[in-house]
Amino acid sequence: MVQQMQVRDINSEKEETMESVIELESRIEELKKQQLSLDLTRGKPGPEQLDLAANMFTCVDAGNYSAGSVDTRNYGGLDGIAEAKTLFAAYLGVNEDEVIIGGNSSLALMYDTVSQLMTHGTAGGGEPWFGKKTKFVCPVPGYDRHFTVCEHFGIEMVTVPMNEDGPDIDAIAQLVENDDEFRGMWCVPRFSNPTGYTCSPEVIQKLAEMKTAYSDFVILWDDAYAVHHHGAGPDSLESLLEACKKAGNPERVILFGSTSKISLAGAGLAVTGGSRNTCDWMRKRLFAQTIGYDKINMLRHVRFFKDLDGIMAHMDRHAAIVGPKFAAVEEVLSNELENGGIASWTKPRGGYFISLDTEKGMAGKIVKLAGELGVKLTPAGSTFPYKNDPDDRNLRIAPTFPGLEDVRKAAEVLAVCIKYVYVKENTGGI
Amino acid sequence: MVQQMQVRDINSEKEETMESVIELESRIEELKKQQLSLDLTRGKPGPEQLDLAANMFTCVDAGNYSAGSVDTRNYGGLDGIAEAKTLFAAYLGVNEDEVIIGGNSSLALMYDTVSQLMTHGTAGGGEPWFGKKTKFVCPVPGYDRHFTVCEHFGIEMVTVPMNEDGPDIDAIAQLVENDDEFRGMWCVPRFSNPTGYTCSPEVIQKLAEMKTAYSDFVILWDDAYAVHHHGAGPDSLESLLEACKKAGNPERVILFGSTSKISLAGAGLAVTGGSRNTCDWMRKRLFAQTIGYDKINMLRHVRFFKDLDGIMAHMDRHAAIVGPKFAAVEEVLSNELENGGIASWTKPRGGYFISLDTEKGMAGKIVKLAGELGVKLTPAGSTFPYKNDPDDRNLRIAPTFPGLEDVRKAAEVLAVCIKYVYVKENTGGI
Repeated sequence: MVQQMQVRDINSEKEETMESVIELESRIEELKKQQLSLDLTRGKPGPEQLDLAANMFTCVDAGNYSAGSVDTRNYGGLDGIAEAKTLFAAYLGVNEDEVIIGGNSSLALMYDTVSQLMTHGTAGGGEPWFGKKTKFVCPVPGYDRHFTVCEHFGIEMVTVPMNEDGPDIDAIAQLVENDDEFRGMWCVPRFSNPTGYTCSPEVIQKLAEMKTAYSDFVILWDDAYAVHHHGAGPDSLESLLEACKKAGNPERVILFGSTSKISLAGAGLAVTGGSRNTCDWMRKRLFAQTIGYDKINMLRHVRFFKDLDGIMAHMDRHAAIVGPKFAAVEEVLSNELENGGIASWTKPRGGYFISLDTEKGMAGKIVKLAGELGVKLTPAGSTFPYKNDPDDRNLRIAPTFPGLEDVRKAAEVLAVCIKYVYVKENTGGI
Repeated sequence: MVQQMQVRDINSEKEETMESVIELESRIEELKKQQLSLDLTRGKPGPEQLDLAANMFTCVDAGNYSAGSVDTRNYGGLDGIAEAKTLFAAYLGVNEDEVIIGGNSSLALMYDTVSQLMTHGTAGGGEPWFGKKTKFVCPVPGYDRHFTVCEHFGIEMVTVPMNEDGPDIDAIAQLVENDDEFRGMWCVPRFSNPTGYTCSPEVIQKLAEMKTAYSDFVILWDDAYAVHHHGAGPDSLESLLEACKKAGNPERVILFGSTSKISLAGAGLAVTGGSRNTCDWMRKRLFAQTIGYDKINMLRHVRFFKDLDGIMAHMDRHAAIVGPKFAAVEEVLSNELENGGIASWTKPRGGYFISLDTEKGMAGKIVKLAGELGVKLTPAGSTFPYKNDPDDRNLRIAPTFPGLEDVRKAAEVLAVCIKYVYVKENTGGI
C-alpha cells in the first residue's frame, strides 16, 4: 500500500523541531542568489527518457512500410492496423475486437468521446446529453485536463475523494444511485494522477455493479500509467470491462491508454476500447471524422516494441531514470519536513506525480514563493475542478522532466517554502 | 476553362455511329475473359506517388529532432511548430497568425469544426447549432465525406449545381438571403471534387459579399487540391479570406488544406485557417481537445519541403505521374464515346477525379455492369447528399491509384458499359 504521512495537529512540539523564521529567511536568501530556473509543473518525460525511443525514428522507412498487405503510407484503416490492435489489446487487457487505435493524443479520444455523448448519445442508445443537465463524478485530486473537457461541455463536476484504494466508492454510489443527472465519471485507475493510487479489486467490482439512476452511466477509465512504474513493476489492476460485462453493464466503461509516456510524448499512440458495441458506437463517429489515423506511426510502435514484453522491458528502462527522481524528492521532503508534521505527501510506486497536502490555505502562497525562488510549480487548485481547491492545500509535484540534481534542488526549495509559509502563517501571517 | 462535352439529344444519327448490341456484347464477353480486378473508386495516390516522399521517413531522426528550441519529441505546442506555420501560411495564402497545424486528417479538422459549431456556436459569438434546424448548401456533384459530416450531425443538405466557375452563386444567394436556417456551406474551391472546376474571382467576391439571413453563415472552404495540377500548374484562386475581410465578414470563411495527396496519404499534415478571431475560437476547442498534434511529423514536412517552392517542385513530380493517367482516360473516353453523344465528362487540369454524366437513370446500371467486368466504380449517387443522385446520372472516376495501363483498361470497360447500357435502355431496357 502507498504510505502517506498524516498531517499532525499544530502544536508547539513541531515548531521546536523546525528552523526559525530567521534561519528560513537566510536559506531563502541563499536560494535566491542561486538564480534557479526549474520547472516541476507538467508531467513530461525528460530528454533521456525520450532518447530510449531513438530507434522509433528509423524502424519504418521507405523500404519497409508495409503492415502485412497494407501500405501504411496510403489512406484507409479506420480503427487501426491489425498488428497495432493485437499489441494494444494485450496492453489494455481486452480482446482484439475491443480496441481502437487513435492518433497521438488519448486526451483527444476522451474529448471526442464526450463530444459524441453530447451530440449523439450513448453506446447503449441513450439520448444526446446536449441541453440536459449533466453531472460527472470527479475524484480529487485529479487530472486537470479531464476537468477541462467537462468544463468545455458545461458538465457540472462533483468531487469525491481519491483514496489509496481508488475513488471513494461509497460516496460515488451515494451520488449516482439517487440522481440521474450523474451521467458519468472520470478515473485514472492506476498510479493515478496526481496521487499515484491504484484501484483495488473491491472498488472495481463495486464500480461495475453499482446501481445508477441514469441507466447509461459511463466511466471514462483513463489507464494513463498502466505500465509506468518506478522500479518495482506495474501495479496489477482488475479488468473493469470484464467486471462490467459480468455485472450486465458492458457499455458502462470506456477504456483509454496512451504511449505518450512510453515512446515519444508528442508522437505516441492513443488507444481506446470497450465492449464490441461500444467500439461499434465509436466507429460510427470515426467514419464521419476521419479516413484513418497515422498508420505509419502505428507500425513504428509495433516494430519498436514487438509485443507487451517489449513494452514492459522498455518501461524498466524508464523506471531506471524516473525512479531516482521520485526517490530524490522523497528523500529531501522527508529530511526537511518529516519532523515538522506540517505536510503530507504520497509515495507513489508509479506514475508521474507526487501529491502533497499542506495545511489549509497555504498552497497558493507556497506556489507563489517558490516561483520567486525560480521553481515553477503547478498553480494551486489545478488538481481540482474549476481550479478550485476548496482547502487551498494540494500541490502537484512533477519530478520527471528536470535532471536528477535539479529535481533535488527544486524539492529543497519546495520544502523551504512550505516551512516558511507555515511558520509565517502561524506567527501572524506572511 | 475546363471544357465539357455536352449531352446531345437522342437521335438516330448517333446510334449509327456506335457499335451494335451484338458488337458490344462480344466486347463484354472478351472483357469478362480477362478477369480484370481494377479499382477506380477512391482518390488515392498511387504507390509511385508515395515513393516521391521516401525521404520523409528519414529527414527527422534521433539526432535532429529540434525545431528551433522545441524538442518535437515532447509534449506541447497546441497549434503547431512555428516553422510549419510559416510554411502552411504561405500554402494557404494567409498570415502566420491565421493558420493552425493539425494532425494527419483535414476531414477531422472539418468534422471537429462542425462539431464545435454544434455544441459551442460560432466564432462570431452565435449560439450553438445543436437542436436548431440547420441547413447547409452543398454544391453537387461534391465530396461524399463532406455530406457524411452533415448527415452525422443532422444538418439538412440542399444542393446547388457546381458550375465551371464555382458553385452556382445565384442559386446560393437565393437560398441564404431569405432563410436563416441556412447556416453554412461546403466548397472545394479549386480542382473541385469530382468536377475539377475552380472558383472564379467573381464567384469568390460574391460569396464574401452576399447577404445572409443567418448572420454567422460559415463557408467551409476545403482547398484540398490547391497545388494538385496535372502538368500545367495550379489554377490561381483569389483569397476568400481577404475578400471576406474586405466585405466586413471576416469570420465567414474557415480554410482547410492537407498534404495527404502531397506527402503521404495516411501521414500527411492537415491545416486550417481563418481570421485571427476564428483561429482563437478554434484554439479554445483545441485546448480542451489535445496537448498538441504530432510535431515530429510537422518537422518532417518542413525539412522535406523547405518552402512553398519545394512543395511546387514536388507537385510537378506528382503531375508527371498523374497527368498521363488522366490523359489516358480522356483519350479512351473520347475515342469510345465522343461520336455517340451519350455522355459528358469533365477534362480537369488538376485534382483527383473526372466527373462523368450519363443520361438519366443509367449510372447505377453502369456501375453494376462494370463491377461484373471486374472494374470497381464509386457507387452511383455517392457524389450527392444522402447518396441520392436524383437523376442517377453522375459517375466519379478516380484514375490515380491504378497503374497507367490498368487505368486505360478500366476506362475502356467503363466506356463499353456506358454504351451497352445506353443502347439497351434505348432498345427496350437492359
